[in-house]
Amino acid sequence: MNTSDTPHAPEVGAWFIGARGSLATTATLGIHALALGAAAPVGLTTETDAVRVEEFPAIGGIVVGGHDISTTPLDERAAQLAAGGMFPAALVEATRGRLRETEENLRPVPTLTTTQQEEIDLLAADIIDFRDRHDLREVVVIDVSSTEPLPPYHPCFDDDDLLQTALTTPGVRVLPPSSRAALAAIAAGAAYAAFTPSASLTLAVLRERADRAGIAYAGQDGKTGETLLRTVLAPMFAARGFRVQSWAGTNLLGGGDGATLADPEAVRSKLVSKNRGLHALVGDDVVAPLHIDNVPDLGDVKTAWDHVNATGFLGSRVTLQTTWSAYDSALAAPLVIDLVRSLSLATRAGHAGVVPALGCFFKDPWGSDVHGFGDQTAQFVAWVHETAAAVAAARVAAP
Amino acid sequence: MNTSDTPHAPEVGAWFIGARGSLATTATLGIHALALGAAAPVGLTTETDAVRVEEFPAIGGIVVGGHDISTTPLDERAAQLAAGGMFPAALVEATRGRLRETEENLRPVPTLTTTQQEEIDLLAADIIDFRDRHDLREVVVIDVSSTEPLPPYHPCFDDDDLLQTALTTPGVRVLPPSSRAALAAIAAGAAYAAFTPSASLTLAVLRERADRAGIAYAGQDGKTGETLLRTVLAPMFAARGFRVQSWAGTNLLGGGDGATLADPEAVRSKLVSKNRGLHALVGDDVVAPLHIDNVPDLGDVKTAWDHVNATGFLGSRVTLQTTWSAYDSALAAPLVIDLVRSLSLATRAGHAGVVPALGCFFKDPWGSDVHGFGDQTAQFVAWVHETAAAVAAARVAAP
Amino acid sequence: MNTSDTPHAPEVGAWFIGARGSLATTATLGIHALALGAAAPVGLTTETDAVRVEEFPAIGGIVVGGHDISTTPLDERAAQLAAGGMFPAALVEATRGRLRETEENLRPVPTLTTTQQEEIDLLAADIIDFRDRHDLREVVVIDVSSTEPLPPYHPCFDDDDLLQTALTTPGVRVLPPSSRAALAAIAAGAAYAAFTPSASLTLAVLRERADRAGIAYAGQDGKTGETLLRTVLAPMFAARGFRVQSWAGTNLLGGGDGATLADPEAVRSKLVSKNRGLHALVGDDVVAPLHIDNVPDLGDVKTAWDHVNATGFLGSRVTLQTTWSAYDSALAAPLVIDLVRSLSLATRAGHAGVVPALGCFFKDPWGSDVHGFGDQTAQFVAWVHETAAAVAAARVAAP
Amino acid sequence: MNTSDTPHAPEVGAWFIGARGSLATTATLGIHALALGAAAPVGLTTETDAVRVEEFPAIGGIVVGGHDISTTPLDERAAQLAAGGMFPAALVEATRGRLRETEENLRPVPTLTTTQQEEIDLLAADIIDFRDRHDLREVVVIDVSSTEPLPPYHPCFDDDDLLQTALTTPGVRVLPPSSRAALAAIAAGAAYAAFTPSASLTLAVLRERADRAGIAYAGQDGKTGETLLRTVLAPMFAARGFRVQSWAGTNLLGGGDGATLADPEAVRSKLVSKNRGLHALVGDDVVAPLHIDNVPDLGDVKTAWDHVNATGFLGSRVTLQTTWSAYDSALAAPLVIDLVRSLSLATRAGHAGVVPALGCFFKDPWGSDVHGFGDQTAQFVAWVHETAAAVAAARVAAP
Repeated sequence: MNTSDTPHAPEVGAWFIGARGSLATTATLGIHALALGAAAPVGLTTETDAVRVEEFPAIGGIVVGGHDISTTPLDERAAQLAAGGMFPAALVEATRGRLRETEENLRPVPTLTTTQQEEIDLLAADIIDFRDRHDLREVVVIDVSSTEPLPPYHPCFDDDDLLQTALTTPGVRVLPPSSRAALAAIAAGAAYAAFTPSASLTLAVLRERADRAGIAYAGQDGKTGETLLRTVLAPMFAARGFRVQSWAGTNLLGGGDGATLADPEAVRSKLVSKNRGLHALVGDDVVAPLHIDNVPDLGDVKTAWDHVNATGFLGSRVTLQTTWSAYDSALAAPLVIDLVRSLSLATRAGHAGVVPALGCFFKDPWGSDVHGFGDQTAQFVAWVHETAAAVAAARVAAP
Repeated sequence: MNTSDTPHAPEVGAWFIGARGSLATTATLGIHALALGAAAPVGLTTETDAVRVEEFPAIGGIVVGGHDISTTPLDERAAQLAAGGMFPAALVEATRGRLRETEENLRPVPTLTTTQQEEIDLLAADIIDFRDRHDLREVVVIDVSSTEPLPPYHPCFDDDDLLQTALTTPGVRVLPPSSRAALAAIAAGAAYAAFTPSASLTLAVLRERADRAGIAYAGQDGKTGETLLRTVLAPMFAARGFRVQSWAGTNLLGGGDGATLADPEAVRSKLVSKNRGLHALVGDDVVAPLHIDNVPDLGDVKTAWDHVNATGFLGSRVTLQTTWSAYDSALAAPLVIDLVRSLSLATRAGHAGVVPALGCFFKDPWGSDVHGFGDQTAQFVAWVHETAAAVAAARVAAP
Repeated sequence: MNTSDTPHAPEVGAWFIGARGSLATTATLGIHALALGAAAPVGLTTETDAVRVEEFPAIGGIVVGGHDISTTPLDERAAQLAAGGMFPAALVEATRGRLRETEENLRPVPTLTTTQQEEIDLLAADIIDFRDRHDLREVVVIDVSSTEPLPPYHPCFDDDDLLQTALTTPGVRVLPPSSRAALAAIAAGAAYAAFTPSASLTLAVLRERADRAGIAYAGQDGKTGETLLRTVLAPMFAARGFRVQSWAGTNLLGGGDGATLADPEAVRSKLVSKNRGLHALVGDDVVAPLHIDNVPDLGDVKTAWDHVNATGFLGSRVTLQTTWSAYDSALAAPLVIDLVRSLSLATRAGHAGVVPALGCFFKDPWGSDVHGFGDQTAQFVAWVHETAAAVAAARVAAP
Repeated sequence: MNTSDTPHAPEVGAWFIGARGSLATTATLGIHALALGAAAPVGLTTETDAVRVEEFPAIGGIVVGGHDISTTPLDERAAQLAAGGMFPAALVEATRGRLRETEENLRPVPTLTTTQQEEIDLLAADIIDFRDRHDLREVVVIDVSSTEPLPPYHPCFDDDDLLQTALTTPGVRVLPPSSRAALAAIAAGAAYAAFTPSASLTLAVLRERADRAGIAYAGQDGKTGETLLRTVLAPMFAARGFRVQSWAGTNLLGGGDGATLADPEAVRSKLVSKNRGLHALVGDDVVAPLHIDNVPDLGDVKTAWDHVNATGFLGSRVTLQTTWSAYDSALAAPLVIDLVRSLSLATRAGHAGVVPALGCFFKDPWGSDVHGFGDQTAQFVAWVHETAAAVAAARVAAP
């Protein structure tokens, strides 16, 4: 698997749920381009001066694999994204060989299983096989698939015995795909991150299983564009004692995400997730209408307009409008790489359970009620250095 | 001076250089409106839950005085501002009695003095008289006058003996008004803050005099609108590892400030001050054209448009536009009150010299190279609580 | 009714459906302020150099009356609007006497009638009484009430006999308020304009009645802000041969209109009406998501953001964003006055039936498929001068 | 010259002053791409349904030639523009053969001539040779070179004898390049258009020469982006009777144009030209600060922000912000082709002198004081159809 132009031995596996989508393709191409020196490490939090530690796995030491229901080859998908302007076509050429090598690590999602447990076992077996074949120290599973509609409540979401019965009863289907993938990660002993707002580990019974299994995990819903901006701006209003009255937002996007989020059911979990931080930061009574519109001609560029109205000193009015425009997958892909490196670090340090210090990467941070991006960043920086020091100390202490 | 409806005895003096301008009028009316309970303490950093300590002087305990070359009565100026929409006309009515009382504390700037030292002595005498008449624990002098052109260099800016000779030689005029006002504050033993980008204490020889005198002081140039926003947003780009390529800005404003800044000489110091933080945060090579246009019909509302272009992952483009619109004096006035309270606290705690922890209030923070607003806020919060604790401890220890 | 400071005898009646709402109050106060010389005729199309003719009724010759279910006095409503910043409080003072005189011309909407015909007869009687009492040459009825939900279809909408049966059968309620008001105008022989997107004269059977009655009428849905802007911009793209791919819009507003349009049923007719011109101008396949959000803190100011994406030469991308911010009632009120004057002119010229040349005032112009604002304006200007010339010629010819 | 895949015989010459710049390269590539059917005629006014007439020369019948001081091959320049995203790289491939053929028609600007007349004669000879070699019915010279600083006044600008003396005196240099190029067009009997704001034919004595020579000509300064938008929007404010108080603008651009316009001398004529239409449409007293900033990282995309503040009914405030973002050369290139076709049509119809009906293409229309884009478009449409009818009639009348 290793090629002559890579100085790094395979070290850590990145296993993507939705491995052929825009985001995973961009992340995979990015890992290869960075390993080859064909691109600079711009956009990566883990490569900033404030964060970088040598205990992170080298980018060149990350091997990519994953599941997807699609069969579009990675290099074909990458060429489409390049045509849309996300990255230069030359990068597709530069990484084509490695993208084809990665193809060998991609697996279809099993279908036609009798029970959901059977599917989960097959998924887990793929992950374990990937780890073994590449002799990886650890694997980090990251769910980067499309947003799902939330599943209807079922009592087994709160009862492990009921869950096990349901999973093993032929024909019974209680868990959505994101939760099945999460159980596969748990079964494989892999670290796990939920980059989408789907059900995933939010079901209480699954969260308990993850904790019992002792894996490191984090979530939920990558904080990429408009929400990032909001959690940067809202603390400003709070620090200055303004009363934010309304914060209206409209998102325009095309691409696959635009089509997915045109479905009112799928968009619901997204909208809730997007507004959670805002309410936490400026209060529950802020008026915050929020729309996501599918505008196919905009392609992979997401444009978000926000309008903030606040009351300042002596009742005077303050308004702020922001228009943010960026390729959503290009915002998300480096965060996915940052999460692979961070959960690898956590795993090396023996961390079990949720990692609240990774909140800066998520719209809806598990295990944390800190939403302000500045505070989250400070937490992450501190955690990285503490954890790296612990890893370094353990390495020295080992014989 | 105290009126029957104030529960607070006079405690601290706020002495404004430019006491009849938009900003000082808004701050003065605001102090009275808050003391009377006619307005809520919105927009005040020192009244947020994270900052508030009881060692701050009560708003009702602040007595206002100041110098100005204008003679427009405060209530007339306030009525003009209310007509422009800055605050409700009802607040002018509610505070008219107190504004008229404040008139008695306002003094003209001495003219026709033979030497600059003579003017400084007269200015200082006004401040001392104000303190004595109201029996104030301390006075905080805040320069809120219009931005001056920077003075031509003179060797006495770096040599105390030369300065003293110049100040005492009839007909010689080396120091601009802001620096004379700062020397008056030093002579009166008052704390001092420079809310404008004028020369003020930036001359080395004056800075040394302030340090020798042991006053608490801070500066420079209030961070109110566009610059506040920039120092909130720039750390986001840095934390995420983006390369900011350009950050262009245009400010439209009318009112007195618009007219002042239409003068290319006066605007120069402002533009330098506005861009300093940006360069510190995202690098010296960012392309940052910046304009301030006088648009009289916009009155006291300042509208600022910024356009940021950054490079993200794999060279992908990220653009952000912001349009900020607010009454500039209404943004600045609460910061002036926050500075009065903070420099009063510093003085009570025996702080001598520059107070770097007040950097969150300034575009160009003296004594600090921290420009990110989040970090500055964290510093300020920590400083307030430490300093308040020291004051409280001293009070307990005293007989 | 005439006051000593008015040089104009009562000439024409303006009868507002929704006479106590924001829009009618602004129009009424405006008529009085203009008549008194307390305001300049800014914002009136009929007072621009290109349009003004002396055959228009003088503003001072317009007498205002109307129906409303509310009982809030006009001067109280006007004071609320002034407090929100729509116009200076001094104008309320200047017109208070006349607003109180206008009160005498306002009538409640009849309730508890046995049949809808009975209600229509009572409404018509009020209009006739108004005309007689003030000895008016003609009355123009303008529906400026809140947007209604569209009524469910009923066969009588297409059959005059069925309609008459329904109207006269006790307890049967088939017509919505806007259509009953329109029938009252027809019965009173008054000219009529529909300034809202409600059902009104869009029902075929009512349209035929209006035509048979020979009244001049026009509609529908005042073209005030975002839609005005769109029908100005869309012809530019068409003239230059661009392909507009998407035109997304978000409207934020508070006030009464915001609350009304927060109702999904009421908003439906509004959204359809708003997008009709856009599709006519740039094609049916443009992607045009459109939202109206109720944001109470914004009060009567409506803020609309539009994002246009077009393809230009060789496939290059052109994007345009617009943010329009204005007091919606202040945009609409002068158009209402323009319509009173224009329909008065049409009536004087003996015009019977729809007046397509008034399309520049409407989002959804009856009798016209011209949507571009420039073309509509040219039509209106030509029509005014032709019609005025006809009136002048008839006056000369008369003995 | 004709290639087997072109059904059109050479018919008309387009001679570009600045033939290797971004704009001419885009226009040249566009002509070839359209002729080959590799691109759709989007963005061309002369291909809209309202305008198209068969008397226009076929796109495939246009032969391109020109002068330039640069020697960069067209296909290399085109590849650079494609890399910047202006058009797909595939179009460069599709037209490479034709671009290389065009190379043979490009000539350097003569240098080291003793007199300016000598240079003009050489330039004219190049144009005549081009016409003869390709057996063209007429040639249209279009100045698309960079904006020049305006020349200092010289008496010969108003006196033909003085001019002739100056032009023929060795070492005397009075005319800037744009005016020399215009004289060459006159000498060659070619139609002429000034697409830049340079001196060109604005010198009275040159204008007279053009009129005496009987060529068809038009100018000045292509109306592409922000100014187009302004002349679309300003008539809306005027039609509705608003008083526009201020119209502030900021343009950000990189590319060659950004660098040129960073020179304060060069930008002066541009700024004057840009604001002329605005003042004509909304009055001379509008406050209209305008900036052009060189922002290299934005490349060929120009982003323009405008802020309009107007007073409406009863003094209420209306604000409009627009952000326009487009590849400037892609906006301009189709207009250049439209001008070639329109001046060809004028020439065929025997039109001598300025063509005021082409005002819709220019910021500063020669021979016209109509600035509103809607009115200009109507004029152009009428002129095209009248002129085409005259050409058709003459053709029928001819033996």
